[in-house]
Amino acid sequence: MNPVELILKKRNGYVLHKDEISFFVSAYLDGSVTDYQMSAFLMAVYFQGLMPDEIIALTESYINSGKRIEFPDGIITADKHSTGGVGDKISLMLAPIAAACGLYVPMISGRGLGHTGGTLDKLEAIPGFQTQYDMEALLDLTLKHGVAMVGQSGHLVPADKKIYALRDVTATVDSPGLITPSIMSKKIAEGAKHLVIDLKVGSGAFMPNLNRAKELAELLIRTGDAFGQKVTVLFTNMNAPLGTHIGNALEVIEAIEYLKGNYLPDTQIITEALTAEMLISAGLAGDSDEAVSRIREVVSSGKALHKFEEMITAQGGDAQVCSDYSRFAQVKFELPIVSVRDGYVQSIDSTGIGYALISVKAGRQKVSDGIDYGAGAILHPKVGDRISSGHQLGTLYANDLQAGEQAIQRILASYKLSLEPVAKEDIILGKMTLADL
Amino acid sequence: MNPVELILKKRNGYVLHKDEISFFVSAYLDGSVTDYQMSAFLMAVYFQGLMPDEIIALTESYINSGKRIEFPDGIITADKHSTGGVGDKISLMLAPIAAACGLYVPMISGRGLGHTGGTLDKLEAIPGFQTQYDMEALLDLTLKHGVAMVGQSGHLVPADKKIYALRDVTATVDSPGLITPSIMSKKIAEGAKHLVIDLKVGSGAFMPNLNRAKELAELLIRTGDAFGQKVTVLFTNMNAPLGTHIGNALEVIEAIEYLKGNYLPDTQIITEALTAEMLISAGLAGDSDEAVSRIREVVSSGKALHKFEEMITAQGGDAQVCSDYSRFAQVKFELPIVSVRDGYVQSIDSTGIGYALISVKAGRQKVSDGIDYGAGAILHPKVGDRISSGHQLGTLYANDLQAGEQAIQRILASYKLSLEPVAKEDIILGKMTLADL
Repeated sequence: MNPVELILKKRNGYVLHKDEISFFVSAYLDGSVTDYQMSAFLMAVYFQGLMPDEIIALTESYINSGKRIEFPDGIITADKHSTGGVGDKISLMLAPIAAACGLYVPMISGRGLGHTGGTLDKLEAIPGFQTQYDMEALLDLTLKHGVAMVGQSGHLVPADKKIYALRDVTATVDSPGLITPSIMSKKIAEGAKHLVIDLKVGSGAFMPNLNRAKELAELLIRTGDAFGQKVTVLFTNMNAPLGTHIGNALEVIEAIEYLKGNYLPDTQIITEALTAEMLISAGLAGDSDEAVSRIREVVSSGKALHKFEEMITAQGGDAQVCSDYSRFAQVKFELPIVSVRDGYVQSIDSTGIGYALISVKAGRQKVSDGIDYGAGAILHPKVGDRISSGHQLGTLYANDLQAGEQAIQRILASYKLSLEPVAKEDIILGKMTLADL
Repeated sequence: MNPVELILKKRNGYVLHKDEISFFVSAYLDGSVTDYQMSAFLMAVYFQGLMPDEIIALTESYINSGKRIEFPDGIITADKHSTGGVGDKISLMLAPIAAACGLYVPMISGRGLGHTGGTLDKLEAIPGFQTQYDMEALLDLTLKHGVAMVGQSGHLVPADKKIYALRDVTATVDSPGLITPSIMSKKIAEGAKHLVIDLKVGSGAFMPNLNRAKELAELLIRTGDAFGQKVTVLFTNMNAPLGTHIGNALEVIEAIEYLKGNYLPDTQIITEALTAEMLISAGLAGDSDEAVSRIREVVSSGKALHKFEEMITAQGGDAQVCSDYSRFAQVKFELPIVSVRDGYVQSIDSTGIGYALISVKAGRQKVSDGIDYGAGAILHPKVGDRISSGHQLGTLYANDLQAGEQAIQRILASYKLSLEPVAKEDIILGKMTLADL
């Protein structure tokens, strides 16, 4: 097969055969299709799209580029994927809770880039925590401890790793036909039989509106089904940062507080909803009420926190962080964030806050950038809250005073205020499974 | 400026500012924009198109990547560009004829790739003929001899050279927004003040229909005008090979025969029409009749052939080829092409013939392929001609007997016959200049 002809075929809107997709991906991995041919192909896919069968073929070629875990019979595996949001540390609570409830969670996560953080970076804020494991080690860790949270090493779906890096620098990220294989290949290769997806909807979120989100959800569900994975998608309204803590160590602290029973309304709603769907999908709970009471039980009993500590220790980390937050990296400056305006919070520009925190190195702009694990912010106001001039909204954590003060100005500018009271918004907007299609 | 943001801007359908285009091209040449980012950008341009001002800006950035020739006052420069066709050796006659009429023709040409040949390859079939010159040498040769035909060396519009090579392997060739700067930058940089463009129309040709061809013509004319170049576009019907000879040495021989006064109807119509437009545009003839009689005079007097010989000698070639065709590379096999069917020629698949002749190395499939200069075919039948079984249609020239016999089968299959008489087609379909816009 000729790579140029395959690019041309897709460019001209034809449907590619499974063998053509498999050839193109394999040839890219062995170097006979070049980066510049792959990026032209990806841009053609952006414009012409991929049909469901092409997406399944692309997902399969991603999976076949690496190893696929097979768990022993009787082991019920489940996982969660989130399309990303500022302050989204749900995985840190959900994975140990699900494991404490009896599920096996072999979670492959990513790093942060741009305004949203990544679970791997958050975990690496725990001194000593290791995230680089191969597929055999992921299987072993999960079987032994019920949960493992690892990164995408060279052996874990290498085609996705290489193509994702290229999409990131060629403006070809936001295409449903490319997003679906990227998400699903990792979640299928890791062996999860049940997958719950937190699909963020809204301005500044991954999907701008519910219609577009539903189209993507259908592709995710059908692709999972093609590989024997049961997928449940929850559509969530994520126009504002999740919880109160943003920044790597700060988010782990918020997660530990959650596992100690110190819930915040928005994180509790999402954590319980997603974990409940995992339990229901896997047959460990009959309905949402039963699932939620089980989830609350493993938190209040301390089982979930213990599972989190067990995972930290298993992956080389210092589990004493859970009782002694001073073991996390500390910053030089803790600056009060003080409102200079009065009003009701109408909306919060989480992207603006995300980028403000990159400037204090809580996140990275480029893959090669370093991170200050201790940097970030605690921000209390939620949509609908009343704030007033002189009122401290939160605290900014930074090692650079000037960058920190500038970040505070950008954070303050991210709150849009209204003189009239503002109603709280629903967080869970809907749900989709194969039965809905 | 951030390359990814510029790709995104074009991908999302926005118009790029002149400075953004200039930055992107310069950054590509200095390596800070990568091949894979450029190819993603090119594919985005394929889908979103470029506005006329963007095309002019891209053309300018191409021109500014190299040197631009300025001819002295009083020197009237003109050139021709053809969008390419099988057997199209018109430049070989037109350039010396135009020079013999008093024009200065600084022609930058290309190599053949795929089913169409390239003027440079044809010229290099003349033993010793050199095509690699820098801009100063092109200026000197043209001033001294009235005509020079050279290749696109690294210094002649390097941005186009680098980007064209990338387009060729990423399925981004056939986009008006990219074609226009590629054609025009060379023809403007070489200093031609008058340009005639032979824009082929029809199935298998560069433009599938007259409407698409007119859109491209308007872009070519407006871009030329932005740089002080007067552009005349002739739309020609080129569904069949041009003339009788196809292959590098064979086409030079046909051109020499033409310059000796041995015309063929189709090549004569196109050569005279294009050259006449050059003379009219430059003010050397008042109308078509005056131009054509001048053109025929320089052929019948031998001045045009002498100009061709002068150019060959000036560029290091063996001008004795004009009187002794045995000085061209010879092939081992001259095989008769004999029809096995009866009928009137309804159409000739020139693309099929072009690819058949690649198999005997008359052309190249890849840039790195070698060429047999002596290989090719002489084919006599034209649309409307009656042919019969057992009738020799022409001769195949090849060094490989088996490849030659296979090529003959493919050539024979390229003639579509009809039992009913078929009318001849018009060759010149129309004309467009700035005055028509």
